[in-house]
Amino acid sequence: MRLQIVQPIKSIDELASFCKRAGFVFPSFEIYGGMAGFYDYGPRGVELKNNIKAAWWKSIVQDREDVVGIDAVTVNHPKVWEASGHVASFTDPLVDCKSCKSRFRADHLAKDILNVDVAGMPLEEVTTLLRNKNVRCQKCKGELTEARKYNLMFKTHVGPIESDENVAYLRPETAQLIYLNFKLVQDSARLKLPFGIAQIGRAYRNEIAPRDFLFRVREFEQMEMQYFIKPGDNKKFFEQWKKERMNWYLSLGIKKENLRFREHIKTELAHYAKAAVDIEYKFPWGWGEIEGVHDRGNWDLSQHSKVSGKDLSYFDDEKKTRFVPNIIEVSAGVDRTFLAFMCEAYATEAERIVLKLNPKLSPIKVAVFPLVKNDNRIVKFAGNVFSDLKKKFVVYYDKSGNIGKSYRRQDEIGTPFCITVDFDSLKKKDVTVRDRDTMKQKRVKVKELAGYLEKQLQ
Amino acid sequence: MRLQIVQPIKSIDELASFCKRAGFVFPSFEIYGGMAGFYDYGPRGVELKNNIKAAWWKSIVQDREDVVGIDAVTVNHPKVWEASGHVASFTDPLVDCKSCKSRFRADHLAKDILNVDVAGMPLEEVTTLLRNKNVRCQKCKGELTEARKYNLMFKTHVGPIESDENVAYLRPETAQLIYLNFKLVQDSARLKLPFGIAQIGRAYRNEIAPRDFLFRVREFEQMEMQYFIKPGDNKKFFEQWKKERMNWYLSLGIKKENLRFREHIKTELAHYAKAAVDIEYKFPWGWGEIEGVHDRGNWDLSQHSKVSGKDLSYFDDEKKTRFVPNIIEVSAGVDRTFLAFMCEAYATEAERIVLKLNPKLSPIKVAVFPLVKNDNRIVKFAGNVFSDLKKKFVVYYDKSGNIGKSYRRQDEIGTPFCITVDFDSLKKKDVTVRDRDTMKQKRVKVKELAGYLEKQLQ
Repeated sequence: MRLQIVQPIKSIDELASFCKRAGFVFPSFEIYGGMAGFYDYGPRGVELKNNIKAAWWKSIVQDREDVVGIDAVTVNHPKVWEASGHVASFTDPLVDCKSCKSRFRADHLAKDILNVDVAGMPLEEVTTLLRNKNVRCQKCKGELTEARKYNLMFKTHVGPIESDENVAYLRPETAQLIYLNFKLVQDSARLKLPFGIAQIGRAYRNEIAPRDFLFRVREFEQMEMQYFIKPGDNKKFFEQWKKERMNWYLSLGIKKENLRFREHIKTELAHYAKAAVDIEYKFPWGWGEIEGVHDRGNWDLSQHSKVSGKDLSYFDDEKKTRFVPNIIEVSAGVDRTFLAFMCEAYATEAERIVLKLNPKLSPIKVAVFPLVKNDNRIVKFAGNVFSDLKKKFVVYYDKSGNIGKSYRRQDEIGTPFCITVDFDSLKKKDVTVRDRDTMKQKRVKVKELAGYLEKQLQ
Repeated sequence: MRLQIVQPIKSIDELASFCKRAGFVFPSFEIYGGMAGFYDYGPRGVELKNNIKAAWWKSIVQDREDVVGIDAVTVNHPKVWEASGHVASFTDPLVDCKSCKSRFRADHLAKDILNVDVAGMPLEEVTTLLRNKNVRCQKCKGELTEARKYNLMFKTHVGPIESDENVAYLRPETAQLIYLNFKLVQDSARLKLPFGIAQIGRAYRNEIAPRDFLFRVREFEQMEMQYFIKPGDNKKFFEQWKKERMNWYLSLGIKKENLRFREHIKTELAHYAKAAVDIEYKFPWGWGEIEGVHDRGNWDLSQHSKVSGKDLSYFDDEKKTRFVPNIIEVSAGVDRTFLAFMCEAYATEAERIVLKLNPKLSPIKVAVFPLVKNDNRIVKFAGNVFSDLKKKFVVYYDKSGNIGKSYRRQDEIGTPFCITVDFDSLKKKDVTVRDRDTMKQKRVKVKELAGYLEKQLQ
């Protein structure tokens, strides 16, 4: 047996360039020079992303009795984000270079250059810190301005006039839209505590410094579930959801040693939060958050109730009491999760790049090839195999007749099984099934093929 | 046999109010007084919408060899919309009331009051028409201003400064993002003409007068496919796609008499378009567009090529020629399609509201009830049936023990099958399966149940 040398991913740039070539992710607006922090998903990427979202939705909504979904709009009434506190304080500390006018996030400079975490530190202290340590412009070494607040929400206007009265915001997170719909959902679906409301959708943050490929972008998707509970049950459900969510990543093939919990330290916690933990993945540049599990107390519903004047309390039929539910939130980034699955799956071996994705997530499940393209009997046989399998699986048909190249192409987009129709197939009514990971081949009868694949793909 | 009197839907308001009560669609930001033209999908609505999108994606992308998907961003580089012509001319004619400052679309006033279609008419003529016919403010009868152009794109800014240099637009359609990615997709997926690129995603139009529930909204989803062809093949593929798309609606249960093609008249055609036809549905207020099939010629790729300076031509390997592909577009509104399926399915009968959705689209496929809630054996039996079916279907479990009410609730969200576990079930190991449309009941053995349902749901 030959020893297989497997190289894991070396850098995020290597992955970004692979993603572009193989049709997973493209930089947006490339023909117009691009726009930092925006990416489009290509033919393979959109299927992988859809599979991730479908797996999440199935596990969080459809397989459970206590969670339902919603899908709310992304252009939002300003009151929502005033009530949530985002208009006042969803900000990053920003400094400009007095010479070349470049802009930097003060907290990133402090962390990257001084190794200091300034989360929660007043702006004056951040300014003093950077000046005392003589931190200067990273481009021209010029002097930096004082740190100032910069709001991360994209702003627009609804209606024909651009005035303060008709400002709207692109939502910076999906969570608030769930709180707004809490009563409507509870009433129409007749839900009793504890229950959850889930949502997958876009969110927008006008980041000053997008970076690390899909990790810090300006337009992204979240998959979130807000679990409404009786006050006092917080600790129990917080622990339960931590466990559930970690298991989800493990069940889809991320190795244990590449995942960890990171508890938020006191200065990181939002003022209303009772507890918060990140699920982190070990990216090529280090650990990074892919999901947050938060005990938000009753702050969100109380706040919207206060600002809107509408009652958002819950009446407990059994105990005849009325109270504002508490909330445990599980909030994952779709693009970050996508990136984690890609980093985990990507490997370079002696003769190939292979994406060892969990078959549930693979963009294509089965590829079918005729061994040669100039034999009508073989091409027709392969075409029939393809048409037959297509009823049950997402199948790709490649009639180039170059088996070596076809295998490599399927390996690098993560297709778990390749099927080749050869001359023996005509006589024996069987085909070769090749396994992506082991590269081993096996003859399977055509009439048993769908069943065989179904079993393997479970 | 009792004669069943079936009432179809009477008005769009009746449907909107049903959608809210039954958890399909809620007005957005209701606790803050709402925002016209924005709607959120509730627990039942999000599942129906997802099923519509999945059925479209399967038929357009996954079941075909010649179409791939993408998923691009919604906040867009301004050059895209300058090149496409939207910055200059994606406008509606607007008039204001000089007294009460209400705003109206001049073309809507002309159509609704004068029964005149002013599409393509110069603004001065529209003004003259309205004045000659003495059309006045619809709220206070005040005098109206001259008609002026109003751009429908939502505008925002990317980066910390709000200046003309960093303007970005929320995409008013998904199509342009496909054209931008044409080369990247073609190269990475090694596609040869004819081939298509499909996308499902949000688009935004700052409508002055949102109306007709989900029909004319400010934030919506499109499902679009751009089919790239050799010049000269236009007529063939235009006809082919017209047929394919009409069949899709028919295959999902919309009656033939409620669908029609409407050819665009000359003044409606975009200057670059060679041919265009709408697929219209007969809504309660009349015929309305749910999808457009357009022959766009080579205008889009030529225009982006010209403005960006990048070559977007195609090289034909066989004939050794280079040319700019032509495009046939099929572009459906997700929300309008949703509305059409709801209008088609909604019916009031003597004792119930029932949603006769195609089972493929139903939010829930099977509901399971114990006949009573106070018999442990029955509840346990029903729980087992539920757990078992859940592996294969989207199943709802209702242990209220009030079968009549449970049936009605499932009828109105379109669940095709309800299963009741009763005392006989304990002995005979069978259950009652009730059909939504006929309300007929049938005993089925538990061990045959999954297979029976699978067959019915195909």
